[in-house]
Amino acid sequence: MPGTTFNMRAEIITIGDEILIGQIVDTNSAWMAQKLNLAGIKVKQISSVSDDRQHILEALNESKGRADLILITGGLGPTKDDITKKTLAEYFNTGFRLDQDALENVRRIFSKYKAPLLESNIKQAEVLENCITLLNLNGTAPGMWIEHEDRIFVSMPGVPFEMMYMMEELVIPKIKKTFKLPVIVHHTILTAGIGESILAEKIASVEDSLPAHIKLAYLPKLGTVRIRLSGNGQNEELLKNEISVYVKRITDLVSEFVMAEKDTPIEKVVMDYMESRKLTLSVAESCTGGYISHQLTQHPGSSKVFLGAAVTYSNELKISMLGVLEETLRNYGAVSEETVKEMAKGAHSAFHSDYSIAVSGIAGPDGGTEEKPVGTIWIAITGRSKTISRKYNFGNKRIQNIERSATTALIMLYKLMNQEQVC
Amino acid sequence: MPGTTFNMRAEIITIGDEILIGQIVDTNSAWMAQKLNLAGIKVKQISSVSDDRQHILEALNESKGRADLILITGGLGPTKDDITKKTLAEYFNTGFRLDQDALENVRRIFSKYKAPLLESNIKQAEVLENCITLLNLNGTAPGMWIEHEDRIFVSMPGVPFEMMYMMEELVIPKIKKTFKLPVIVHHTILTAGIGESILAEKIASVEDSLPAHIKLAYLPKLGTVRIRLSGNGQNEELLKNEISVYVKRITDLVSEFVMAEKDTPIEKVVMDYMESRKLTLSVAESCTGGYISHQLTQHPGSSKVFLGAAVTYSNELKISMLGVLEETLRNYGAVSEETVKEMAKGAHSAFHSDYSIAVSGIAGPDGGTEEKPVGTIWIAITGRSKTISRKYNFGNKRIQNIERSATTALIMLYKLMNQEQVC
Repeated sequence: MPGTTFNMRAEIITIGDEILIGQIVDTNSAWMAQKLNLAGIKVKQISSVSDDRQHILEALNESKGRADLILITGGLGPTKDDITKKTLAEYFNTGFRLDQDALENVRRIFSKYKAPLLESNIKQAEVLENCITLLNLNGTAPGMWIEHEDRIFVSMPGVPFEMMYMMEELVIPKIKKTFKLPVIVHHTILTAGIGESILAEKIASVEDSLPAHIKLAYLPKLGTVRIRLSGNGQNEELLKNEISVYVKRITDLVSEFVMAEKDTPIEKVVMDYMESRKLTLSVAESCTGGYISHQLTQHPGSSKVFLGAAVTYSNELKISMLGVLEETLRNYGAVSEETVKEMAKGAHSAFHSDYSIAVSGIAGPDGGTEEKPVGTIWIAITGRSKTISRKYNFGNKRIQNIERSATTALIMLYKLMNQEQVC
Repeated sequence: MPGTTFNMRAEIITIGDEILIGQIVDTNSAWMAQKLNLAGIKVKQISSVSDDRQHILEALNESKGRADLILITGGLGPTKDDITKKTLAEYFNTGFRLDQDALENVRRIFSKYKAPLLESNIKQAEVLENCITLLNLNGTAPGMWIEHEDRIFVSMPGVPFEMMYMMEELVIPKIKKTFKLPVIVHHTILTAGIGESILAEKIASVEDSLPAHIKLAYLPKLGTVRIRLSGNGQNEELLKNEISVYVKRITDLVSEFVMAEKDTPIEKVVMDYMESRKLTLSVAESCTGGYISHQLTQHPGSSKVFLGAAVTYSNELKISMLGVLEETLRNYGAVSEETVKEMAKGAHSAFHSDYSIAVSGIAGPDGGTEEKPVGTIWIAITGRSKTISRKYNFGNKRIQNIERSATTALIMLYKLMNQEQVC
């Protein structure tokens, strides 16, 4: 029927013992799920299975029962633990052919790195007889597109940037060309400073009034809660308009807690705000050890706002780089209101930025005292007119303390900027 | 039978649309898999399913066919999109009871944060009638341990630190008390500077001689390849000894590429080496923007080695913080051998460290020129006797360029230290 869209369901199968023994975190699947969603394809399940013939065969069979598109990553390397290709051949009851383009690609890569071409590398250019080859310009293992019993199976390498290229340049475009897909729209609101259950109570009237094709979810994380509206439809513009009405109703109800009306990391909210007002930022980091700077600079274009940071782990550097007084450190210690304020002011004047963040605390697991237990964090922000500071007691997990400190400092900065810019 | 161990198989089921639409990366499963493995439990599959009644029921059914222990995370929050608990009740055909200890815990948490207790929060203290309650000291949603048709089902919150506490303090100890589990031993060798396939060829004789209960795998990542030996057995000491023989044979064959004989992140290898020799480190970061410092300082005890860093995004800060000459920047630009060497020397003398790393490059996606395209990265290391430097051309992905620069700089540092310390 012309005009009818195909509600394609996908399953992602990741193959590799390293995921099942917890040696690596599967970041590929989240990335793939995002791209599929944007294309209007619903991911029904993500399954991680081991480098085991029987188990791979079972997973393929199960996925066939619930998905139209099965995306398989991993197990295509040149070494003996990589068994995906031969297991797929068994599953489809097919053989191999040497793909000349894939072989050419392998040769090109090895000559670029001036590495000797091994038998195992040449074998990587072998693909399933029943497949359409997906050329891998970033690596030696080609991908494969197989149509089988009304399903599409795609096998891709597990190396993230090889898979990403293949998905973006080959797989998604090919699917879009072949099928008319529905529209999936997500709209996320970022809130800070309010708990999940109180938030839910405040917007209960909106949640209760949602139609069946729009769902609402809450995603709490380190002092923030994201509210996500997800809609399914045929017409993108209509659906977006419909969702935007609910977004407006929600943000009206909890406006004082809304940091962004889109799914943006908090550091990006802060930088976008600053960029549009031509404000600059510097950071003085002690216990966060470069994490805040990294959060900011992972984003393209951050140099328009972020000038730099002093990561001062030692007291000597707090003095020499930030101008903290020796006396202050001696009298109050490195983790104190006095020190963190001098750090913020020091960065502000040394780096000539409009705003400065400073964090000093005890991230743990060691270094705590009775008076200042692990998790004691002082944060200061120097702005146009003043320096504000606040103490937090987070907990005893190092990484969590670092991440929470960063999020909290950025929220404090955002609030101060709003105060100071209002007029 | 006394003495016989139980080869327990686990499945991890994560529930939540946020994973299937790619809004969050599932880090819980890798963490859980690690802990299970250490306890001698093999993870058979990780399945991520949506907040959908029918789909959760199917996943429970399927997992029952392949696992003895089914660990379920997510969907226990106070909001309407959290449906795990009622779906489990349906699956087990059971009702709810209000758990007094869990209720007390909810009250305690709300009074601590001085937040009003809502009806939805009280409902969180309701658990399945057929369960053993797992108290959640870090949050309001209790966990549940259910024994059903010779399987153990455990339901836990999806918030990482709540789940982690429950796994470490309650679930793993309870399993260990109940079952005699086999021993699983992993031993990983970290190599740098050699490709996966050449490595495999060099150690082929060892790989071919492995007994059936020991498996070998290769994990390539950004300039490093990890070789992992995994063994299964009854006696931990015997198994460890057996594996260590193969580790020795492998490291003998490729000794010049071995950075560590255990599964350690590269920055930890460097810091351990420096700590044992009482060496200190400082960092001058431009395009890596704090990432190297964060990599180092995420580890407890890093303050023994790491003094601090200057994150100098702007040219002005390269001059004022690191003493780079204005002339050098004018004549050669920020991304040049001359500048990166002055950055390394500047950090070395300003921070009084034994070694210094400096990185300056074009991380992208913008800022490239014909002469210096995106991915052009200069790295310099100042050591005891000299400053070394090298140019790399990585690629056009920002995050990947940042990560690769960090790994490469740490490998360069490690090699220089080895050179300078040999005598």
